[in-house]
Parts: sequence; structure tokens; C-alpha cells
Amino acid sequence: MQIMSYADRRAKVAALLAEHGAPALLVTHPVNVRYLTGLASSNAAALILGDGTGMLATDARYAGTAERLVPDVELVIERDVSAILRAYVDAVAVEAQHMSVAEHNRLGGDLIPVDGLVESVRTVKDEDEIEALRRACAITDEAFSLVIGRVAPGVTEREIARWLDFRMMELGAERPAFETIVASGPNGAIPHHSPSAREVERGDLVTMDFGALVDGYHADMTRTVAVGEPAGWQRDVYELVWQAQRAGRHAVRAGSAASAVDAAARDVIADAGHADHFEHGLGHGVGLEIHELPFLGPDRTGRLEDRVPITVEPGVYLPGEGGVRIEDTLVTRSDGPELLTLTTKELLVI
Amino acid sequence: MQIMSYADRRAKVAALLAEHGAPALLVTHPVNVRYLTGLASSNAAALILGDGTGMLATDARYAGTAERLVPDVELVIERDVSAILRAYVDAVAVEAQHMSVAEHNRLGGDLIPVDGLVESVRTVKDEDEIEALRRACAITDEAFSLVIGRVAPGVTEREIARWLDFRMMELGAERPAFETIVASGPNGAIPHHSPSAREVERGDLVTMDFGALVDGYHADMTRTVAVGEPAGWQRDVYELVWQAQRAGRHAVRAGSAASAVDAAARDVIADAGHADHFEHGLGHGVGLEIHELPFLGPDRTGRLEDRVPITVEPGVYLPGEGGVRIEDTLVTRSDGPELLTLTTKELLVI
Repeated sequence: MQIMSYADRRAKVAALLAEHGAPALLVTHPVNVRYLTGLASSNAAALILGDGTGMLATDARYAGTAERLVPDVELVIERDVSAILRAYVDAVAVEAQHMSVAEHNRLGGDLIPVDGLVESVRTVKDEDEIEALRRACAITDEAFSLVIGRVAPGVTEREIARWLDFRMMELGAERPAFETIVASGPNGAIPHHSPSAREVERGDLVTMDFGALVDGYHADMTRTVAVGEPAGWQRDVYELVWQAQRAGRHAVRAGSAASAVDAAARDVIADAGHADHFEHGLGHGVGLEIHELPFLGPDRTGRLEDRVPITVEPGVYLPGEGGVRIEDTLVTRSDGPELLTLTTKELLVI
Repeated sequence: MQIMSYADRRAKVAALLAEHGAPALLVTHPVNVRYLTGLASSNAAALILGDGTGMLATDARYAGTAERLVPDVELVIERDVSAILRAYVDAVAVEAQHMSVAEHNRLGGDLIPVDGLVESVRTVKDEDEIEALRRACAITDEAFSLVIGRVAPGVTEREIARWLDFRMMELGAERPAFETIVASGPNGAIPHHSPSAREVERGDLVTMDFGALVDGYHADMTRTVAVGEPAGWQRDVYELVWQAQRAGRHAVRAGSAASAVDAAARDVIADAGHADHFEHGLGHGVGLEIHELPFLGPDRTGRLEDRVPITVEPGVYLPGEGGVRIEDTLVTRSDGPELLTLTTKELLVI
């Protein structure tokens, strides 16, 4: 069991600063502040210096929590968290993807824009983080079990989404990890369909894409079920996506190229003549954000490292008819993937 | 019934461009794109020119919706929505509070940072928008009615929050307008307390701060109830906050100074010796965002205009003991405020 401390995380960030020619990094993205200090706050910033020491600024509401969480970091209690930290250094790197132009102009002086520095450190998770994801995925699995028996002709997409959300919360989720997708019948052809008032009909495929948020970590799972005996084309598409998903999962391991994992699944779908019906990437990292590094896609570079939680979610979408998507959250291990979402992927006929 | 068209909204923005010395505005904040075109998309941008004409860019997923919603705006289907629109003009104003430094550097060229231009137009609502808020507030009221009977010793804050959220969704909310706050007993002293596993006890005050999201518009209401016969201090604090809230509401009208409305409520609390126990602003605008212009506070400048939806939410927070907050959403009218959240403010003892 490898547990990384917040100090270790800050040291990793500090080690990357030299590459960017920056003496310090002003961390303003709330998720990154939380990652480096443990403090989840709507008003906090951290300053990481090249030697690995740091400072944390937050306002009076969070003072007690901050003192308890990071006794080894100098704490500054001040409402204007970025300006107060910025004043401690001359030149400082800023998180260019997260800092607004207005904030940049307000802080002024020698600011060095950097992209994704903390995010790159966040990619590889420690076992504590994986355990939080495991619990989030377990709640996701259980919510599915509790709701699936109520999916039937006449219930609406919105009702199913509400039941899933309610069960996840009841089981201990902070909240749903993202807006739950329920897409029935022809709506299944829309990858990011919002649950509507459409009533499920006999003969529909119903795709449910949802997940629980636990201790800040985001689960992500999709299952597609058949309402009543599926038609031949529905069985065929389901079997195809299932095969593609299996191929993608088997390609997930430390050392795999991101584009190769994508290709492992995509080739199965393309070989069946459905290349044009699978237009999104195969998957994405999950952690303190629902979409984070690394991404799996035809044009994605880089290789997977060890202990990287990631989704594998191929789909086939037939406009006007319907669609199938199957998605798991898994973790790269040196000897292959560890599956975190454990709900069966056999076609459920309900 | 005054209905403003999207074209009227764009014309208002165009009229403000000259003040900023900009020939055009690149609108990238999704809420602002929606406000000016009707298109709710995770990938869209609009270009508003000085003559009031505009362009809308989005990707293929939203092409059909965009064509239907804004037939009078030139549509560009392209994934990189900001770069493609930026290419149509030499100099362009950008939304400095919403554009990241990374995006700014990527677009390059002559970009003029402006703050809150579309937001200032959004402040005054048309009757369609107020009607959406009215429906959101009605759902909020009804969810309270349906849940309040289940609040009792032994239920947890999280359960109450879940029930409120579930009922709002069931009644037609897209989702809760923000993370529902339920704070019982001593937790009531924390203005932004997250619902915990704490069980409600006899003798508690319980504060519920929640609202429904309907057609993109955010309701916001807070009520505090007593579980069992309230102690003298609880009755006193409740009565004080209620009086302060009433004073604040009565000060809300077109033409009132934002600081004067705040003072009307704050003075009541200060006169009772609780100035230090009310440290947040009195209220905020609501609309397509849960917190938007205008803000009510001691240091806020400006005056309220006609047809501005706003919250009035004073509180008294006694560390370690508990607190009371009472909040309504209302709309400024020339002859006084129109109340949108209609739940009683008498102290409910349950």
C-alpha cells in the first residue's frame, strides 16, 4: 500500500518547476489546491516554491480546517488569496488553463503561464485515491442494482435518472459525479443526451451513464439494457460494442500507448463497418475531476503509467434508431487492468 | 408582458461595444452564449459586431438546434469555436473574467479584455425570464411543503437534503440550482455548511437553503424551522432575522441603492447587538447563474433597476450554538418588490 503524502505531492510539483524556468507556482485551481494540501475550499490558493516548501492562503471560514490539514505549510488568512501569495515572489508561474485574463491582469508583474503542471502529477494515483474511486464505483454498481428492476415500459428517462441519483446519495455519495445520462430508444444515438420526459417503450435499448462522487473522486460507468426481447440488430450492435470494450480493456496496462488502447477497441468497431458510428474518444482519466489526464483517442500521444484510473467506453450510435455504450472505470496495473466497476456486461433483458 | 428577443439582447450588447472601443465582442462564456442566442451548448461561441449582427459557432452535435434557434445569425459549424470566430475580425473584445490565460495566448493578436459586458445586460430580466424563475420558485416552495413533514429527530441533514433534491426533480426541476444546504443545531452557525450525517435533535433549529433550476433559471430560498418547542434565545434570534429580512425586502425597489438595501436589514441586526454575527452580504442577483449581478452589501455601489430578480437573505450565526437565515427570491418592480418564493416565514415548530 503506497500512500503519498501531501508533502510528497508538493515535492513532485516543485521538481517540475525548473523545467518551466519558474521559481514558484501559484496554484489557483481549487481541485489542484485540494490535491496539494487537502483543503477543499471555494477560496484558497497555494504557492509552491522550488525547494518544495509552500504557503497556503484562505479566508477566515477555512482557517481551522487548514491549520489541521496542513500543519507543515505556512498559512496566510486573507480573503484575496491569489494577490497575497503573488506578493511573496517576484516571478511566478501561473496555471494558464485556469486563470482568467482578468485575474492575470489584476495580479500583474512577471507571471509565467504554464499548462497542466499539477494535472500531470495528478495522473498517477496513490492507493488512497484508488480506494476512494473503488468506493465510488461500488456505490455506482449498487445503485444500478437497486434501480434496474424499476426500468420498464412507461417510466421516463428523467425518472430513471432521478432514481439513480437518489440511490447513489442514499448509499453515501456526496453527489452524482456528473449529470446522469439516460437515453432510451432513438435517443440512445445521442452520446450526451440529457434525460427527457420520453417514456421507455418495449423494444428500446436504454443507456445509463452515471457515477458516484466519493471523497472528491469520480466514478463513471455506462450500461445499456434491452426492454423486452431485443431485435436482431440490437443484439448484434450490443455484442459488437461489448467485444470492442473487452478489447479496449485488455489493452489497458502500464506502458500502453494511449492511441493503441483506443485502436484496440476502435478497430473492432471499424472492422464491423461502424467506424462512422463511433466518433468520440475511447476514454479519459478520472480522479478529482470527471475528465482528466490521460485521454484515450486516435490522436492522443503518450503512454499509460502504472496506477492510472481511466474509463473505457466505446459506443455505436445509429442516428434515428438507437445506440449502445458500455463503460467501465479501471486502473492500470503493471500486469494489466484492475476493474473498479463490477456490474455485469452481459446484455440484460428486462 | 414585455418579451425581449435574442436579437434585442444582441443589439444591447452591440450598443455597449463602442464604450469599450471594440469593434466586436467574442462571447465564450456558455451562459452568455445561451443568453444571446438561446443555444445551451458545452461548445459554442458567438461574435457580436458593432452593428448588432452576429455569428454563432458550434460543433456538428449542435448544428440542428442552432439552425432552429437562431435563423437570423450566421452559423459556423466548427469544433474550435473561438479560433474560427476570432479569425473573422482583426481586433476583438474578449470576456476577460471567463477566458483563460492559455486560451488568450492561443488566440493571440489584438484582444481587448472587457469585464462583465453581457452580464450587465443580463441584470434586467424580461418577463419570459421572470416567468421561468417564478416556476423555479414554485417548485422550490412545493418541495419544501412535501419534505417538511418528514423533518424530525433522528433524520440526518443529508437525508433532508436528498429529499428536497428528489422532490424538486420530481416536480420538474432540471436539477437543484446549487448544492442544497441543510444545517442543524450548532451546524446552523456555519453559513455554507454541507449536509452531514448529523442527526436532527429535539431542540435544534434546522436551516434549509435550496432551490430548483428550471429552463436554466435558478431559484434560491432559505427557511429555518424549530424541532420541538424553541428556547427563548432561538425565538429571539428568529424574530430578529425575520424583522431584518422584512426590512430588507421592503427596501427592494427600482431605484434603491444596493448598499441602502443591505443597510435596511443589517441595521436591524446591528441594533440588536448582533452585527458581528452577520458577516455576509444581504443578497445577490439570480438568473442563468445562481450568483450574478447585482450584489447587495455594505460596499456595493449602484442602484437596482426595474425587473431585477434578487435574493434577500440575512442571517444571525452564533458559533457553537446555531443560527437562523431566512431568504426569499424577489423581483424589483417600480412600485416595490414582487415575491417569488411564497413559503411562509412564520417560525414553523415541528
